[in-house]
Amino acid sequence: MEQVPYTYEVDGVRLTGFLADGARGKSAPGILLAHEAPGLTAHVKERAGRLAARGYVAFALDMYGRMDLPTAEAQEQSKQIMGDGALLRRRARAALDVLASQAHCDATKLAVIGFCLGGIVALELARDRAPIRCAVGFHPGFMRPIGSASGPITAKVLMMIGDDDPVVPAEDRALFVHEMKQAGADWQLHVFGGVGHSYTNREIDARAIPGFAYNERADSRAWELMLSLFDEVFS
Amino acid sequence: MEQVPYTYEVDGVRLTGFLADGARGKSAPGILLAHEAPGLTAHVKERAGRLAARGYVAFALDMYGRMDLPTAEAQEQSKQIMGDGALLRRRARAALDVLASQAHCDATKLAVIGFCLGGIVALELARDRAPIRCAVGFHPGFMRPIGSASGPITAKVLMMIGDDDPVVPAEDRALFVHEMKQAGADWQLHVFGGVGHSYTNREIDARAIPGFAYNERADSRAWELMLSLFDEVFS
Repeated sequence: MEQVPYTYEVDGVRLTGFLADGARGKSAPGILLAHEAPGLTAHVKERAGRLAARGYVAFALDMYGRMDLPTAEAQEQSKQIMGDGALLRRRARAALDVLASQAHCDATKLAVIGFCLGGIVALELARDRAPIRCAVGFHPGFMRPIGSASGPITAKVLMMIGDDDPVVPAEDRALFVHEMKQAGADWQLHVFGGVGHSYTNREIDARAIPGFAYNERADSRAWELMLSLFDEVFS
Repeated sequence: MEQVPYTYEVDGVRLTGFLADGARGKSAPGILLAHEAPGLTAHVKERAGRLAARGYVAFALDMYGRMDLPTAEAQEQSKQIMGDGALLRRRARAALDVLASQAHCDATKLAVIGFCLGGIVALELARDRAPIRCAVGFHPGFMRPIGSASGPITAKVLMMIGDDDPVVPAEDRALFVHEMKQAGADWQLHVFGGVGHSYTNREIDARAIPGFAYNERADSRAWELMLSLFDEVFS
């Protein structure tokens, strides 16, 4: 199984993602992974590796072009992305193209998953009618970038949130549901009781942010739910 | 695999459930199934058979003591049950005892699942601290019977509802969430977009009730979610 950094370019900006090809020389579905607000970290790379271990071609995208950013700079980058839906889409689409063009990736079988900010990226690809079969969000934000795409959504949408997530107020959930209905989407919302933001991220507890906490049980349940949806959409 | 009617008695009322033992002579977890408002029908018996085919000892309870009731009479029965939480609990507990006492049932590994009214029964057993590892509801009602039990809930709770279910208004969902938090439960709420009430019941469409409809996709997804939770709680 090959796991390597992979550099590509969008609007003159060099982005460095992380490719984990688990296809073992055959053709396999491709999974795009979109990172959290801090950027592409070991957390998301580990998930790419885990998907490759299951036989998928996995590509963890890079939205910023810079790794290991100080928090303030990562927030700046995140703001820039959220302030420009077209930029977000160009960068996400470019990464999807990288994935689809891999020799062992079956470009007719693509999915995108995202964590936090990456959930927004996954939803935006669904709104933009990217050729993905499903968009999956782990503790996703439901804020829409400025200039967000809109229209019917054909990708299956699965969002999994902690009920105590301070990043996702009730109004945002309601807006998400409203949008999905309008878009005629096949959507699912899974709510974990007693769970906060970043429940998949073991690194988060060290940052001691109120309402943010790793939760092994939710992490494992959410991962299983995602795998079930993959089985459904790729069968 | 043995599948037989099974008669038991509560307060002098003869109840006839349906037992499907899939343990094949070994010891296996036991699953109690609680029916919808119309009573114990082929729908729930079929589910018991399906669980037995997976190796579980399954017992579909009977809340009414009468089968194939005309709609008005079934509604009367349902009202009686909802109007008397203690009666509901006695009948549900008796059925759980029937299940637990089966030769091949591992009485330390019990779960209860319910459909519609049966979801209420499943939750009530959880509230009553019955020795179950989880309570699962398919298009469950969230109304509480009069004289409902209360207190901490240790069984894992998974409720799966259609977003368009007219039986479960937003206020009821909010009350459910509020109760689960108060009870310190490990709870999950899964919402299927574009799905109504009775989504697991193929027989429902013939009745042409607005907002009630079979939905194969939600049915299959919900079943998988339940099986995953069984794997988790019985492992």
